[in-house]
Amino acid sequence: MSGFMTEDFLLYNETARRLYHEYSENLPIIDYHCHVSPKEIYEDKKFENITELWLGGDHYKWRLMRSDGISEDYITGDKPAKEKFLKFAALLPKAIGNPMYHWCHFELKRYFGYEGVLNADTAEEVWALTEKKLSECGMSVRDIIEKSNVAFIGTTDDPIDTLEYHQKIKAEGKLKAVVAPSFRPDKALNLNMDGYTDYIKALEKASGIEISSIATLKAALGNRIEFFNSCGCKASDHGLNFPVYEVMTEAELDAVLSKALGGEKVSDKELAAVQTELILFCAAEYKKYGWAMQLHYNCMRNPNTKMFRKLGPDTGFDVIGPHNGSVALARLLDAMYLKDELPRTILYSLDSGDNSFIDTLLGAFQQEGYPGTLQHGSAWWFNDTMNGMREQMKSLASLGLLGNFVGMLTDSRSFLSYTRHEYFRRILCGMIGEWVEKGEYPDDISTLGKIVSDISYNNAKRFFGLEEII
Amino acid sequence: MSGFMTEDFLLYNETARRLYHEYSENLPIIDYHCHVSPKEIYEDKKFENITELWLGGDHYKWRLMRSDGISEDYITGDKPAKEKFLKFAALLPKAIGNPMYHWCHFELKRYFGYEGVLNADTAEEVWALTEKKLSECGMSVRDIIEKSNVAFIGTTDDPIDTLEYHQKIKAEGKLKAVVAPSFRPDKALNLNMDGYTDYIKALEKASGIEISSIATLKAALGNRIEFFNSCGCKASDHGLNFPVYEVMTEAELDAVLSKALGGEKVSDKELAAVQTELILFCAAEYKKYGWAMQLHYNCMRNPNTKMFRKLGPDTGFDVIGPHNGSVALARLLDAMYLKDELPRTILYSLDSGDNSFIDTLLGAFQQEGYPGTLQHGSAWWFNDTMNGMREQMKSLASLGLLGNFVGMLTDSRSFLSYTRHEYFRRILCGMIGEWVEKGEYPDDISTLGKIVSDISYNNAKRFFGLEEII
Amino acid sequence: MSGFMTEDFLLYNETARRLYHEYSENLPIIDYHCHVSPKEIYEDKKFENITELWLGGDHYKWRLMRSDGISEDYITGDKPAKEKFLKFAALLPKAIGNPMYHWCHFELKRYFGYEGVLNADTAEEVWALTEKKLSECGMSVRDIIEKSNVAFIGTTDDPIDTLEYHQKIKAEGKLKAVVAPSFRPDKALNLNMDGYTDYIKALEKASGIEISSIATLKAALGNRIEFFNSCGCKASDHGLNFPVYEVMTEAELDAVLSKALGGEKVSDKELAAVQTELILFCAAEYKKYGWAMQLHYNCMRNPNTKMFRKLGPDTGFDVIGPHNGSVALARLLDAMYLKDELPRTILYSLDSGDNSFIDTLLGAFQQEGYPGTLQHGSAWWFNDTMNGMREQMKSLASLGLLGNFVGMLTDSRSFLSYTRHEYFRRILCGMIGEWVEKGEYPDDISTLGKIVSDISYNNAKRFFGLEEII
Repeated sequence: MSGFMTEDFLLYNETARRLYHEYSENLPIIDYHCHVSPKEIYEDKKFENITELWLGGDHYKWRLMRSDGISEDYITGDKPAKEKFLKFAALLPKAIGNPMYHWCHFELKRYFGYEGVLNADTAEEVWALTEKKLSECGMSVRDIIEKSNVAFIGTTDDPIDTLEYHQKIKAEGKLKAVVAPSFRPDKALNLNMDGYTDYIKALEKASGIEISSIATLKAALGNRIEFFNSCGCKASDHGLNFPVYEVMTEAELDAVLSKALGGEKVSDKELAAVQTELILFCAAEYKKYGWAMQLHYNCMRNPNTKMFRKLGPDTGFDVIGPHNGSVALARLLDAMYLKDELPRTILYSLDSGDNSFIDTLLGAFQQEGYPGTLQHGSAWWFNDTMNGMREQMKSLASLGLLGNFVGMLTDSRSFLSYTRHEYFRRILCGMIGEWVEKGEYPDDISTLGKIVSDISYNNAKRFFGLEEII
Repeated sequence: MSGFMTEDFLLYNETARRLYHEYSENLPIIDYHCHVSPKEIYEDKKFENITELWLGGDHYKWRLMRSDGISEDYITGDKPAKEKFLKFAALLPKAIGNPMYHWCHFELKRYFGYEGVLNADTAEEVWALTEKKLSECGMSVRDIIEKSNVAFIGTTDDPIDTLEYHQKIKAEGKLKAVVAPSFRPDKALNLNMDGYTDYIKALEKASGIEISSIATLKAALGNRIEFFNSCGCKASDHGLNFPVYEVMTEAELDAVLSKALGGEKVSDKELAAVQTELILFCAAEYKKYGWAMQLHYNCMRNPNTKMFRKLGPDTGFDVIGPHNGSVALARLLDAMYLKDELPRTILYSLDSGDNSFIDTLLGAFQQEGYPGTLQHGSAWWFNDTMNGMREQMKSLASLGLLGNFVGMLTDSRSFLSYTRHEYFRRILCGMIGEWVEKGEYPDDISTLGKIVSDISYNNAKRFFGLEEII
Repeated sequence: MSGFMTEDFLLYNETARRLYHEYSENLPIIDYHCHVSPKEIYEDKKFENITELWLGGDHYKWRLMRSDGISEDYITGDKPAKEKFLKFAALLPKAIGNPMYHWCHFELKRYFGYEGVLNADTAEEVWALTEKKLSECGMSVRDIIEKSNVAFIGTTDDPIDTLEYHQKIKAEGKLKAVVAPSFRPDKALNLNMDGYTDYIKALEKASGIEISSIATLKAALGNRIEFFNSCGCKASDHGLNFPVYEVMTEAELDAVLSKALGGEKVSDKELAAVQTELILFCAAEYKKYGWAMQLHYNCMRNPNTKMFRKLGPDTGFDVIGPHNGSVALARLLDAMYLKDELPRTILYSLDSGDNSFIDTLLGAFQQEGYPGTLQHGSAWWFNDTMNGMREQMKSLASLGLLGNFVGMLTDSRSFLSYTRHEYFRRILCGMIGEWVEKGEYPDDISTLGKIVSDISYNNAKRFFGLEEII
């Protein structure tokens, strides 16, 4: 029997161990898509206690607490920090088979040096240890980034953002890791959002362009893309409930926009048409600047109306979206490809049932001159589990070239999540080690080592155009 | 090599073996959802031969026989019992990889002490052995229940049922196991069913309430729920082809009901609206009485018209339903949650592709004060296989708290199916044993033992409110 | 550690090894569905070099090359053969986990005796070796067929085909393998195809029947079915984007056909109605002649418009079709079954998410007198991977009788693909060996050997009615 999460965790044979320890473990981390705060990086935030780090904004943990019937007071409410932590610690043993179990213990090991098991019995001890460590030097945001060997951080930013903190970090020039913004124009595309008119006003102000038509809305977005580019942006990101593809004339699109700007709700079809037009426009711009485009889709947002009214969005109530937007997605890519305006692109669906569809779609829209122009994003959100990562990689390998995969990202709000890269790399090496020792691939360590280091680091470096800057 | 179905079947390492033999094997069975006959329990039915037990009503076996091209005469027809059994025995070896192979051998081992392999060569021997055993004492329905260490049986009953046998069993007070009805109002909700008007007349008679509107239909159902509750009912069950969510005014709903009571077919939309209204009403009632609600969905009933005309429903011709009712299901739960009328609920889809959707949906509608208010039902019907059970538990574990799972049920018409609980428990312990010995969870036998015994027994006991009665 | 693709590749234990080497390896191959050219067989084509064999028409390889950003010049363009091969060889190591990796090495081992690993370093050596071997005797099409121990080849042919080469092969009487046509009337059913009118004219000429109505179109198809039957045809094949079921009157259908013959596009519903009528007609004919019917569905054809315009269809750009035609498929089978016109049938979906649906559907439409009238086709196209084959067989086993499965086919355009039967047989034996040694099935070699040899050979022989001819 192997011990619990030892140094050879998930590395079941010698090939796996060599691949991880010799070719992957020590490579820097490119965390090309996440939700950490550039302000907290700039200000080098320090944390009071582990509750702030763990339960301050982590909706994964909130879901588990709700699943255990814990009162919202201990989750997003105002109960004392320590009590919240004790509640969470007490439920953790029931999370057997959940990635949270491994995430927590990875974080305790790597950042706090705790080698024990967190549960109701040890919660006090862990609280004390983490409190002590956090009060000492070496646990600020920048310390964590440094200690985690992070080379690149791609944050997620709204077109109206001033990118003030990105610029300050750059101007200061002290942080070894590059922190770059990513362009996420979801709000500009969501005509039925409450406050859409106000948002457009803010976009007018940010861009200096008056928005009264699709053409001027595009111009404003184009202006911000240019600005983001000047601040080192390398990628965009779109969060779609489901892909849409609908074509209307410019006059029709203008009429829809006017309706929305007049405070009226537009129809699903009208919304889809404007979104189609704007995504196609954005894609062409991204391509022009050499950015990567990320499409995240198939999410049902805020299904629980009561809790949405109480806590708002992104509080742990979203679910997998059952819409089937595959035809629309294929049409979107087709429209971009037809005009040579398909940028390097990463597709992520929240429904793992789309894995093989996505992997065949990649093959239909790859482009000359670059290995892996289209990518299947690493298992996202609810799929970001041991099994989910394996399934995504097995599907990708079966239907394309695993060797070109850009690999892992945290998609996280927490600075402790860099250990998810370790988790991913161990799973990758464990899987490949198994293939080799079963005789499914030659035992050729230099070829294998190249594959593993490419997926761990080199492919992302090239895909996001970071060769010159990290 | 391990022998065939030994005492350590499916228990691949020491941790698995300890967990099963020390923490699960001897716990009583709570079979909270099944289709056995309370009359047969009360009357303590005895069986003539194994054909009556195995082929009398088991549509799983009928499907396999049809898959082998066997004439219907030997399946549901009037061929002699022994000949039917011989036909079935002869095909069994081809069912390699089918749960039926294990179910049959479990039943032969546990109830008849037969340790051999059933096939064409041994069929005569098995027929003789089982005939002998069945003619002796100790193989009546009550004997089987006792021998199987069953603590609770939840049958499936129509609102118009008098629950005569449930009351007789209770009054008699001799059976150690508690036999409780479950409330399954599918017929009352199926306005397009042939004979709907007659059914409603029977419901009027049973409830003493004249039904001429949605309000009075609700009143009649409410009356029967109250009656069921007085007879010890702890749970309801709804079988839906697919979830629906449609809202109409009360006047519109009354008009739809009138149409149906006048013998007219109603439209899909009208049907959905009445069903939505009635499910929401029932859910609130269940919540009031502290019952659990079970929703079984995504089934395509009677796709084979010719055989339906010949043999009627539930004869082994249903298939997985490809409708996507996920949005509707989310809306139903949302409507219940909004009004604090969502009872403890178990969701079962016949499409295992819904596993991860269901597991995320649970997380969106859990409630305070109870660990695991919403549950993902154990792998149902076509999914009730070794792989299906593992997949359901792995998905549940990845997206929620496996430790709160209410575990297994037989859903069976046969009294020999209690061995399916053994099958489930072995799979559970085998899976967890593997996780532990791979270093994915600490080797802490008391925590593991608690998880296993909770899933095997304690969670269901608490979920169905059985603490006082078993 | 096992060596790379040794003689015991994929055979992880003694049972698996015995089953493969003693019961499967030496059985002849029945390749009941493929796309090789009967002309090339008759003319006993010889190959210039491995590029012709590997990259001449293999869209699987083209996809991988495109995924690596290789210029189309090296894929379907006119770069020198050797340069194309070198490009492909250089990317192959990145295809770790892809069936192509195994396919290539199987072909190099079995046909060229190359036991090394193909990559950039060995590409020259492999080029030289294969060039030499191909220039020697023993590597013509007929040599390959003979060497591969092929007993039956089912090609894929259009109703207007003269079957000239099938007749010549038969008349010549020298080839040991039987080469039979399969009837694939997709064009006749695709009213919206460019050139439909011309196609119908060709069909009129081939059948000698003037086509001016649904009845005469049926008559023409019936005529060609009769002709195909006279040429030894044993099976038909339909490629459907997705199953449809739509009913119209004969007059309405005639009007739709007139529209199409007049060069107008018909609506989706009209198209579906004509296709429904014609498939039902064809099925009845197939049943009459004792043919098997194959339905391949859920494919999205030509999603990349730009490349479709450049390269045409079947060039490696198709993707999994996300339509849900399951209800329609159930209705089609129901309509056939109702009139006793459902032939022996094999269902293949490109979406592996349909596996369990298909396996339950089989159970609903099996017929008396023949074991396994309905079959779930072996993992098709994008699913034709190690994992895809295992999943298809595990699903089939869980929901039906694996012992009746008709097994593997290549579906290939290449004469080297017979090694895919070896791949399949190894996977089958490996899987069953594992079940046995885990104690899930008795260690009874004669029963196991029968199951394996039936799936490898006997079941297909019986299913396609080949007992008298091979």
